[in-house]
Amino acid sequence: MSAAAPGGRLTVVGLGPGSAAQVTPQALEAVAAADALYGYAPYLARLPEREGQSRHASDNREELRRAAAALEAAAAGAQVAMVSGGDPGVFAMAAAVCEAIEAGPPAWRALEVRVVPGVTAMLAVAARAGAPLGHDFCALSLSDNLKPWELVETRLRLAAEAGFVIALYNPVSRARPWQLGRAFDLLREKLPGTVPVVFGRAAGRADERIAVVPLAEARSDDADMATCIIIGSADSRVVAREGLPPLVYAPRAAGAAR
Amino acid sequence: MSAAAPGGRLTVVGLGPGSAAQVTPQALEAVAAADALYGYAPYLARLPEREGQSRHASDNREELRRAAAALEAAAAGAQVAMVSGGDPGVFAMAAAVCEAIEAGPPAWRALEVRVVPGVTAMLAVAARAGAPLGHDFCALSLSDNLKPWELVETRLRLAAEAGFVIALYNPVSRARPWQLGRAFDLLREKLPGTVPVVFGRAAGRADERIAVVPLAEARSDDADMATCIIIGSADSRVVAREGLPPLVYAPRAAGAAR
Repeated sequence: MSAAAPGGRLTVVGLGPGSAAQVTPQALEAVAAADALYGYAPYLARLPEREGQSRHASDNREELRRAAAALEAAAAGAQVAMVSGGDPGVFAMAAAVCEAIEAGPPAWRALEVRVVPGVTAMLAVAARAGAPLGHDFCALSLSDNLKPWELVETRLRLAAEAGFVIALYNPVSRARPWQLGRAFDLLREKLPGTVPVVFGRAAGRADERIAVVPLAEARSDDADMATCIIIGSADSRVVAREGLPPLVYAPRAAGAAR
Repeated sequence: MSAAAPGGRLTVVGLGPGSAAQVTPQALEAVAAADALYGYAPYLARLPEREGQSRHASDNREELRRAAAALEAAAAGAQVAMVSGGDPGVFAMAAAVCEAIEAGPPAWRALEVRVVPGVTAMLAVAARAGAPLGHDFCALSLSDNLKPWELVETRLRLAAEAGFVIALYNPVSRARPWQLGRAFDLLREKLPGTVPVVFGRAAGRADERIAVVPLAEARSDDADMATCIIIGSADSRVVAREGLPPLVYAPRAAGAAR
């Protein structure tokens, strides 16, 4: 098509980590206003079905194709919402939508595209552990689908050298069984074994699992593809509390332990 | 005191970037349930006054003292909410509360402390620019109040070397007029001048200002203390759109430009 039909719009919506109490009013409003919902099936499943609103569930490996389908529908005049877990701008659909626009027909550049931010997984996990991301940190995907594994290792090494706390997204999958173990081994060469590692799964939901272990004992078996992992720095502190989980936090004065 | 009065509780609440549409129901509920609100005055000012709920506004430089006052009130049996802009776990009050607990009387370790996450500034700014944080990135405070400036420079250099997109918090203040300019100079030595820099202020609010400039032209005058700055990597893409702001994003395939 040479031009987009008028009135079409694509909103990329972050649904937060999973609990309804952590979805913003802006996200709910964007979902309610849509004629068509696109997204990875488990995220769509969080939303009540509504008459007159179509649903287009897809596999989580089909990001670009899903983005293109949503853009086509918007260019044809539909109000489209593409839903993501967490924040759509962090290892999620917003980048795939931008990439599809850049590679797609000129009409897609004329579309109104809006991104509605959300609480991303590392913030929800950090909240349950104390404040491990309270100071300088990085967020890194362990997936080597689209970047060479050597680059992941380089980034881990430089992040540890810089003293960044490290949040790991996509730590394991069936296709990537050994990468997380290798990442822990590599970080053990750079950081004290006492550095706290937070494993967070389903933070804020009924089936939440949060565990804190020292880096020396961190094992990849403790994670699955839905786990977000936060690896402290040499500055990170662990406050033991009787009968309560420990608090892990990044002190305000950084560099003391370097 | 040797033990906390029963029933007291401290909740550290993230109010998001500023728009009411981006505050989670969980945050509103935590504020509503509190007997006493603590926080930096502009954040408290976002909340309606309520009878029977006391307010304790403080200066933004008094983090530890504010945390201690809130913990004291909770230990005396009050339902206390400490409010933060954005996410309380990112360069905000949650770490100060943990630090005060570690340094404080044993009774504070027995308190129920809860952190309610929120949409942090970089996510709100990224959403308005496209998806600049779509892949590996770091978040760095330019404040050298509590870490040596040399450490800030080291982290910037290593982050650029690693190919991380860089989100800068606290880029300037009256006491730190030259640091941001120095950071841009340093990054210009490491990164192509075409790398996009996003300046975001009041993202999602009526007085929002978002600007995208190439690193070669980035100037510290474009920022103030409420600006969050996102500096792309060599992989970052800028999609020009006629009559619309450009889309800045991180492509899924990283390392291509390295």
